[in-house]
Amino acid sequence: MIPTIYLLEMKKRDPNQVEDMGFAKVDHGREVRKGAPEVIFCQNKTPEQVLKISLAILNHGSILLGTRLAEASWIAIKPELPSSVKYDPISRTISLVPPKLRKKCGLVAVVSAGTSDMPVAEEAAVTAETLGSKVERIYDAGVAGIHRIMAKKAILDKANSIVVVAGMEGALPSVVGGLVKVPVIACPTSVGYGASFGGLAALLGMLNTCASGVTVVNIDNGFGAGYAAHQINRLISR
Amino acid sequence: MIPTIYLLEMKKRDPNQVEDMGFAKVDHGREVRKGAPEVIFCQNKTPEQVLKISLAILNHGSILLGTRLAEASWIAIKPELPSSVKYDPISRTISLVPPKLRKKCGLVAVVSAGTSDMPVAEEAAVTAETLGSKVERIYDAGVAGIHRIMAKKAILDKANSIVVVAGMEGALPSVVGGLVKVPVIACPTSVGYGASFGGLAALLGMLNTCASGVTVVNIDNGFGAGYAAHQINRLISR
Amino acid sequence: MIPTIYLLEMKKRDPNQVEDMGFAKVDHGREVRKGAPEVIFCQNKTPEQVLKISLAILNHGSILLGTRLAEASWIAIKPELPSSVKYDPISRTISLVPPKLRKKCGLVAVVSAGTSDMPVAEEAAVTAETLGSKVERIYDAGVAGIHRIMAKKAILDKANSIVVVAGMEGALPSVVGGLVKVPVIACPTSVGYGASFGGLAALLGMLNTCASGVTVVNIDNGFGAGYAAHQINRLISR
Amino acid sequence: MIPTIYLLEMKKRDPNQVEDMGFAKVDHGREVRKGAPEVIFCQNKTPEQVLKISLAILNHGSILLGTRLAEASWIAIKPELPSSVKYDPISRTISLVPPKLRKKCGLVAVVSAGTSDMPVAEEAAVTAETLGSKVERIYDAGVAGIHRIMAKKAILDKANSIVVVAGMEGALPSVVGGLVKVPVIACPTSVGYGASFGGLAALLGMLNTCASGVTVVNIDNGFGAGYAAHQINRLISR
Amino acid sequence: MIPTIYLLEMKKRDPNQVEDMGFAKVDHGREVRKGAPEVIFCQNKTPEQVLKISLAILNHGSILLGTRLAEASWIAIKPELPSSVKYDPISRTISLVPPKLRKKCGLVAVVSAGTSDMPVAEEAAVTAETLGSKVERIYDAGVAGIHRIMAKKAILDKANSIVVVAGMEGALPSVVGGLVKVPVIACPTSVGYGASFGGLAALLGMLNTCASGVTVVNIDNGFGAGYAAHQINRLISR
Amino acid sequence: MIPTIYLLEMKKRDPNQVEDMGFAKVDHGREVRKGAPEVIFCQNKTPEQVLKISLAILNHGSILLGTRLAEASWIAIKPELPSSVKYDPISRTISLVPPKLRKKCGLVAVVSAGTSDMPVAEEAAVTAETLGSKVERIYDAGVAGIHRIMAKKAILDKANSIVVVAGMEGALPSVVGGLVKVPVIACPTSVGYGASFGGLAALLGMLNTCASGVTVVNIDNGFGAGYAAHQINRLISR
Amino acid sequence: MIPTIYLLEMKKRDPNQVEDMGFAKVDHGREVRKGAPEVIFCQNKTPEQVLKISLAILNHGSILLGTRLAEASWIAIKPELPSSVKYDPISRTISLVPPKLRKKCGLVAVVSAGTSDMPVAEEAAVTAETLGSKVERIYDAGVAGIHRIMAKKAILDKANSIVVVAGMEGALPSVVGGLVKVPVIACPTSVGYGASFGGLAALLGMLNTCASGVTVVNIDNGFGAGYAAHQINRLISR
Amino acid sequence: MIPTIYLLEMKKRDPNQVEDMGFAKVDHGREVRKGAPEVIFCQNKTPEQVLKISLAILNHGSILLGTRLAEASWIAIKPELPSSVKYDPISRTISLVPPKLRKKCGLVAVVSAGTSDMPVAEEAAVTAETLGSKVERIYDAGVAGIHRIMAKKAILDKANSIVVVAGMEGALPSVVGGLVKVPVIACPTSVGYGASFGGLAALLGMLNTCASGVTVVNIDNGFGAGYAAHQINRLISR
Repeated sequence: MIPTIYLLEMKKRDPNQVEDMGFAKVDHGREVRKGAPEVIFCQNKTPEQVLKISLAILNHGSILLGTRLAEASWIAIKPELPSSVKYDPISRTISLVPPKLRKKCGLVAVVSAGTSDMPVAEEAAVTAETLGSKVERIYDAGVAGIHRIMAKKAILDKANSIVVVAGMEGALPSVVGGLVKVPVIACPTSVGYGASFGGLAALLGMLNTCASGVTVVNIDNGFGAGYAAHQINRLISR
Repeated sequence: MIPTIYLLEMKKRDPNQVEDMGFAKVDHGREVRKGAPEVIFCQNKTPEQVLKISLAILNHGSILLGTRLAEASWIAIKPELPSSVKYDPISRTISLVPPKLRKKCGLVAVVSAGTSDMPVAEEAAVTAETLGSKVERIYDAGVAGIHRIMAKKAILDKANSIVVVAGMEGALPSVVGGLVKVPVIACPTSVGYGASFGGLAALLGMLNTCASGVTVVNIDNGFGAGYAAHQINRLISR
Repeated sequence: MIPTIYLLEMKKRDPNQVEDMGFAKVDHGREVRKGAPEVIFCQNKTPEQVLKISLAILNHGSILLGTRLAEASWIAIKPELPSSVKYDPISRTISLVPPKLRKKCGLVAVVSAGTSDMPVAEEAAVTAETLGSKVERIYDAGVAGIHRIMAKKAILDKANSIVVVAGMEGALPSVVGGLVKVPVIACPTSVGYGASFGGLAALLGMLNTCASGVTVVNIDNGFGAGYAAHQINRLISR
Repeated sequence: MIPTIYLLEMKKRDPNQVEDMGFAKVDHGREVRKGAPEVIFCQNKTPEQVLKISLAILNHGSILLGTRLAEASWIAIKPELPSSVKYDPISRTISLVPPKLRKKCGLVAVVSAGTSDMPVAEEAAVTAETLGSKVERIYDAGVAGIHRIMAKKAILDKANSIVVVAGMEGALPSVVGGLVKVPVIACPTSVGYGASFGGLAALLGMLNTCASGVTVVNIDNGFGAGYAAHQINRLISR
Repeated sequence: MIPTIYLLEMKKRDPNQVEDMGFAKVDHGREVRKGAPEVIFCQNKTPEQVLKISLAILNHGSILLGTRLAEASWIAIKPELPSSVKYDPISRTISLVPPKLRKKCGLVAVVSAGTSDMPVAEEAAVTAETLGSKVERIYDAGVAGIHRIMAKKAILDKANSIVVVAGMEGALPSVVGGLVKVPVIACPTSVGYGASFGGLAALLGMLNTCASGVTVVNIDNGFGAGYAAHQINRLISR
Repeated sequence: MIPTIYLLEMKKRDPNQVEDMGFAKVDHGREVRKGAPEVIFCQNKTPEQVLKISLAILNHGSILLGTRLAEASWIAIKPELPSSVKYDPISRTISLVPPKLRKKCGLVAVVSAGTSDMPVAEEAAVTAETLGSKVERIYDAGVAGIHRIMAKKAILDKANSIVVVAGMEGALPSVVGGLVKVPVIACPTSVGYGASFGGLAALLGMLNTCASGVTVVNIDNGFGAGYAAHQINRLISR
Repeated sequence: MIPTIYLLEMKKRDPNQVEDMGFAKVDHGREVRKGAPEVIFCQNKTPEQVLKISLAILNHGSILLGTRLAEASWIAIKPELPSSVKYDPISRTISLVPPKLRKKCGLVAVVSAGTSDMPVAEEAAVTAETLGSKVERIYDAGVAGIHRIMAKKAILDKANSIVVVAGMEGALPSVVGGLVKVPVIACPTSVGYGASFGGLAALLGMLNTCASGVTVVNIDNGFGAGYAAHQINRLISR
Repeated sequence: MIPTIYLLEMKKRDPNQVEDMGFAKVDHGREVRKGAPEVIFCQNKTPEQVLKISLAILNHGSILLGTRLAEASWIAIKPELPSSVKYDPISRTISLVPPKLRKKCGLVAVVSAGTSDMPVAEEAAVTAETLGSKVERIYDAGVAGIHRIMAKKAILDKANSIVVVAGMEGALPSVVGGLVKVPVIACPTSVGYGASFGGLAALLGMLNTCASGVTVVNIDNGFGAGYAAHQINRLISR
């Protein structure tokens, strides 16, 4: 949770501040406008590009978060980064929270349907944690053994927002959405085969949910789900 | 359930017997080969064609079942048919079971996720009943209120096979499939809008089920689901 | 906003209470479990079914909200309903808020890209209002004249959550998402033609948004967007 | 076929028993609820995860079956597993049936359209065999040489249920479905190219079958087809 | 079959002759270049446009063939056309063969899978007949009763080319293609529902046929199938 | 072609001027920013909405152009509009060019593949004419009679830009694009059936053109094609 | 072209003769039923399987043709095959025509739109040649330079049937189909990128052709196109 | 910009001149017909094929431009080419402009939404530059930080045509199209994941743009966008 003093500090900054690097325009104003800094989507960037943007963000004193960073790229850029930057191989994220921003707000629950959904679920969990939320994980609780999620109702009831990650038929968000009072962010994954069509089946299932209070992000977009869940949590925890 | 004496009688018939009407070749041998007579899919047929095929089946002494018959077509052909032929406006079926074939075998359960899925669920139920199964209906028991299906566990446990009909995200067969020992025939419906894409979302969800023992039929194919569930029930009840 | 006394009252109720009508199982417990009553999706229901469920909800003392009710159906059931039930022809909703529940919480903004998106936007707005949110509308503010949304930044900044409704290319949620601190619920519409494919283009655009804090509901699902925005608003306003 | 004594033993167990490993919740209750133990879908799991779940299942005294296990993963985990666990490189399955459960029930026939469909057909056959069915294989009997399947009618007539595996146009289940009295489980494969679209053509063909008694599983889901066919066979053989 | 004297006559004409009507450029040269005159696709044309083009073709002394003409349009234009022009309500074609061109070449067989495919099959049959082929029809001979097509092998063996029309899973062309020496033109129809997706399932099935010598035309394109079958028949019969 | 004096006049106006009507924000600044006024897409608007926006544009002294206006809507609003506003039933457009803006710049050619593509082609032609281009039409010149477009090469060579409208396989823009020096705007139409999928086939064909200098607009977007062609023509004619 | 004496010899054989190898049922009767032997689709077969089937066909005295054989597989099996078996790396075919069958019938033309379509075009050409047709190749004659195919009209006019191979927008078969009297077999290729969707654009274009006498095979199915063209050529040349 | 003297020289050449290499027909006439030489699409060609076509173009004295050339292929052919041929690894292009053709016309602006879109944007920029346009680049200016493109309005206003390259939701062309008077060529990229479906989301977004004057090229078709933008620029600059 971003402390009040920091928020006041940000109010004095230019919401449209941009650092132009030619190949990228680092949007420092985003922190002012959005309440959270630019997060680096590393997937289609060269290690050099990731490094330069990371350093720009660190120099600015903001939280650093980079997603979808291949381990090989991490190894290449690690020596050029402060040792306090951490890489997590499951979620494939790099992150660093400056000490003055290490304060947590309320709880986000991250639920996954299967073991194979874990990398996406971890991306959501690490995102929410890095941005300032407490996180509880409930993994491998899919609908084919419905008692598994029922047994965790108490955790769900404590959360301010819930991420539900599922591949295959993507049915879990509908079940969770029917049980709780808080927003459910449904995140489909590409886990599956055949008529899963790379996560399309799970995505369509979630969009057609019969449960209210469920909204959806892109396939495998653990970051987006974790961000949205944190954002809601932060606003509720104010 | 088809009585033994009738089955013996059928063994003497030609499994390849066809009555050629030009526009149609009525496959009387189907009853011999398959254990159930040809069923008339009325949707793209003229009332005259439906009438002629119906009379051919009745003359042959078989069970009559016709699906997807518009009410207007029923009104047009009703005067030409024996008064014992019945039309059901919800499932849009016509049917007549000759008295010697009116014997029921074990139980098929037909479950629907929502009220709007009822026409398809009824097509399944009427099909199974007409062909000789006992049927119990559990309607509007979708996953957004999971306790509704949980409360009906006892009925599910008595069935030899279960049809689960659902539109929208089509998640209910996965939940039912996780609770029971018997085959679940999942039937997606075109109920929904937007990214339901005419039932595609429900269909894909069911094909990607994480529950074992669940197999799938075409969108809105209540007949196919009811037939398959009855076929299993009949074989188990032997 | 649901008053505290009412919430306390609900805590004493059975969260799994169901009123079984055969064709429907009215989920009265939903209000207890979810903080909002069951809402009637009227589209595939007969007027009689809508009427019976409406009366069951009214008898229970809950907020009544029904969506996608054709005007002809409204005319058919209106005489059987209390005169305080209102029908809105643009959003095609019926609603009644019992006097003791008429208290509003913070602000939801509902933005639409084009004039043609208005019915969906109104469904979102009426949903949020009926459930207890204040609502401000900003219509016809699409990206081809970007100054139109820019001019309304002050309203956006006052809202606790924002619904953005758009058809065609569905770009507006990304622009709004880049400007604000609060959650944006993106609702694609089927407005368009050709390669819009019934709203698919807008849906995909919104799912692939490069703005963080944007989540998505089904095509034309104004209800879902309004519900989610109200839910967040209610939790923030507590 | 699971012996009566074992079934009685299972009745005393908790149908909701779960062994929580953090990354997975092994659903030991599934055997009680479903009549067959949890089967490991190895595809997206690390070798370590497969090993740990395998050992948990073996320790529990259940049948072990794992599908889609890459040969390299098998080599990695083999030394840690009992030597009685077998790996089959064509179906890519690992399996072990405890001696007290080695009793077979009636016949499942597994038919394939082409030589290239063999890995999926074998997954179905090994699944049915491991769970307790006798299995007969009829391979490369596609519709372009229709006499090939006609010549095997006698085997089809002895089976309690039939799996038909086909890629390309997926026409074989319709032909088999027209010849037999028992359920046909149609399993499309991704064999093909171009407008096969990864098995979509075969899947759609099977869903649109004009033969009754045919139900469908996901593309390449040999396991699901074998499981469903065994389940029916087991119930009929009781 | 077009008589030699007429073919010689055509050789003297301009292969690029066009009659420009503003809204249409009637391609009289097509008969010279292609061996068959321009055929009118009436579907998206006004009755006036159909009439004017018909008269231009008749004035030119060519065979007249128009497809997809609604009955209402026929009634509107009939009084303006020579009485020898015929309309067929099943295939929805108008046609007139000038006496000097009424000579038939070898046999085309037109096979349909179901009764509902008849309008498309008739469009193919009428096209081939009008252009000069003898035609034999075999209707309702789908693969769910495979003996029905087997019983007609003798007719298939006499044909120079075969049109096979099928909706649903579209499997019949593969079976026929495996039985005969001559080209099979497969014509998918939009008959079906749900996952038929307007004939897509049948189309994909036919494109993925495992039988050689099968080529495919567009969904419901009875004209194209009949034309291609006649063209082959004409060339073989020379 | 917009006269210089008018352009100078516009330079003094506010490029962000908006007339807010609640249901619509008429973007009068568009003429200043874009060089052409807002054009009314009438399809999803009520006659009242079309009327109000039309009057606002006329009051502002701009060119009036409305597309996709149903004839019934035209009849409803005609009495309220100046008599100089014209409706064209083929292109379904309303338009009025103020006398001071009636000056034409260079030539746009509008080519169509078939007679059925005429409504879309006319929408393009009327759009370009209303905005100030000279237009030549070449209709029914599809690739199955390639000499038809070849014969019109001289007209193509005089144009500053070319719109090519085609349904079915959409091949004509590739052929035209290979013959000329100027930009070709390809406009697919929904003319076709079966695997045309509402114009998707033509759209994909045009996007995959092997000819350079061809760009594409949405299916049936005659307005967009005519606008783009005029825009290029106007800039070249300066 | 298969000599008369050989055809007479085949008439004495069993049209349903099958050599059962367990993994494959070699359909020797196909030569009798179809007029051409079984052709090996090598893509999803192991080198051992290809070798065994090849030897079975050679032992039977038939023409050997195998398609989609990877070069590595060829190298593996070459030592076990007679030295007269040839491998062609562009079309990726193996073939051997027994001396008594080396007699050619009339001409097949194989046309390709681009250089990149050559492997598929060669598969068609080698297939037709191996089965007994003379073949002329016209490559890189796409519609963006329409004069290139126009310049080859004389070759097209000599052919009994024409294969047209094209990727991208797949427009060439429509142009060729408009110029010739003989059947055109259109073969789409997966050459392209982006909205080519693996050849879907070309496939749809060809299915929607406005030229008559054009039929279509699967994407990249050079074999199927060459087979169909040869079959027609053989029947015409009789 | 191609100098007048060169254009006069071209007028004397044969517009249908072709250099036939068997595997390719180099269309030297294209320069005469189209105003720009044939450009080599290297992707599916062997290095030898690229080399031979390159030398043919160079020998002809034309501008050389080859796109999608893998670095490995460049290394293989570099020694055989004049040293003045340059390879650019980001856009993957080879190019050489003969000295007499090195004259630039007006300005093309190339805008990209994200850093990852750079390779496609560079292909567009290099294409336009090689063919004779001046080019200004504006990269990483996507809609989630709308002020970034607003800040570059002055550059946009100087350009004669604008290429806008974007992946993900593809919204940027609509925003740019709303701001400028000149044609916008929208180029979707395959940058994204999940429901981006390889660039389909961006493509559909651009086709459904609500901004006028925007036309679209294929996904990742930087060449096509750069070509079209240059063509317009050249015609305006005349």
